[in-house]
Amino acid sequence: MDRVEVEQELAAQLAFLREIDALKSVQRRSQLMNGSRRENSAEHSWHVAMAALVLSQYANEPVDVGRVVAMLLVHDLVEIDAGDTFAYDTNGLATQSEREAVAAERLYGLLPHEQRGDLVALWEEFEAQETAEAKFALALDRLLPVMHNFATAGGTWQGHHVDRAMVSRRMAPMRAGSERLWRYVEGLLDEAVARGYLAP
Amino acid sequence: MDRVEVEQELAAQLAFLREIDALKSVQRRSQLMNGSRRENSAEHSWHVAMAALVLSQYANEPVDVGRVVAMLLVHDLVEIDAGDTFAYDTNGLATQSEREAVAAERLYGLLPHEQRGDLVALWEEFEAQETAEAKFALALDRLLPVMHNFATAGGTWQGHHVDRAMVSRRMAPMRAGSERLWRYVEGLLDEAVARGYLAP
Repeated sequence: MDRVEVEQELAAQLAFLREIDALKSVQRRSQLMNGSRRENSAEHSWHVAMAALVLSQYANEPVDVGRVVAMLLVHDLVEIDAGDTFAYDTNGLATQSEREAVAAERLYGLLPHEQRGDLVALWEEFEAQETAEAKFALALDRLLPVMHNFATAGGTWQGHHVDRAMVSRRMAPMRAGSERLWRYVEGLLDEAVARGYLAP
Repeated sequence: MDRVEVEQELAAQLAFLREIDALKSVQRRSQLMNGSRRENSAEHSWHVAMAALVLSQYANEPVDVGRVVAMLLVHDLVEIDAGDTFAYDTNGLATQSEREAVAAERLYGLLPHEQRGDLVALWEEFEAQETAEAKFALALDRLLPVMHNFATAGGTWQGHHVDRAMVSRRMAPMRAGSERLWRYVEGLLDEAVARGYLAP
């Protein structure tokens, strides 16, 4: 590359970093654990990446932790255009993957060509749910909202006609990534029902 | 470990993950790039970890990107107890490392013994600024606030008697991690002065 191309490459990367600042303005349904406000997708992405650093021993198969972390850092970027889709919103879930594909095209398209491929590959690996890393990343991404809802005496389970069976179905894919964390969540759901946080 | 110890280990790790949710409530001085509100340390940690994924080619020396990312994910955790110290607050900076050491003791102390050592080592490596990874991580951590201030027509540079020389001194350590990104920042500061975002 000549000097101008090198300058353009850095400019493109910084434009991407400025653009993804918008993930801090994407609201999720979950509240912070202290109940003070809803959390946003950027801080959630940080939290779930921290969970990968701390809980990797519970993956069903040995995982490349750095790849799990990278996958989790990018996994919600498409929400900048597509929005966060509530886990129990059937209509939203039906159009989610189409909306997210368009978003990925625009956002990752800001990056220099080669790098774009690397980051899109991380996102597609997460979505495809075929590798041990992707399965474990999904398990962590499902675990955290349950911890948030439990900490806030029901959180998003309240007032959305969500019951134990619906949450259990939503959590079932965790088993493919972490049998141990899935068992933990099932126990927490029992306790949530016992305390009246979640409808039986 | 017997079964009870295994249960206790997971319980300790989840208690740590619940506790660090508080980083989402630590306010930084910088505003979001759209100027809508101040950013918090959790979403900043996500953003700077993304910067590590995208900009690693500009590190002065080859770096282990996964280690840079992990370091950046944990680097602000101590602010949960110690608060964010404003870059140009001389009194705050004088007591910062003592306050942060006490915070590290409490927060990382929630983790099982072995894991505690691994995470504390990441934080200490960042603080010590001796490895290529730590130096590059610091360069990214200094770069982002400049981008935020530029995007918000001066941001925290306005109204705190901050001038170009003070910002340049604050940015000088970037050179040890990334000569290229340091040069970019110096150019941006010139432009910020020309536009009246920053006092000459």
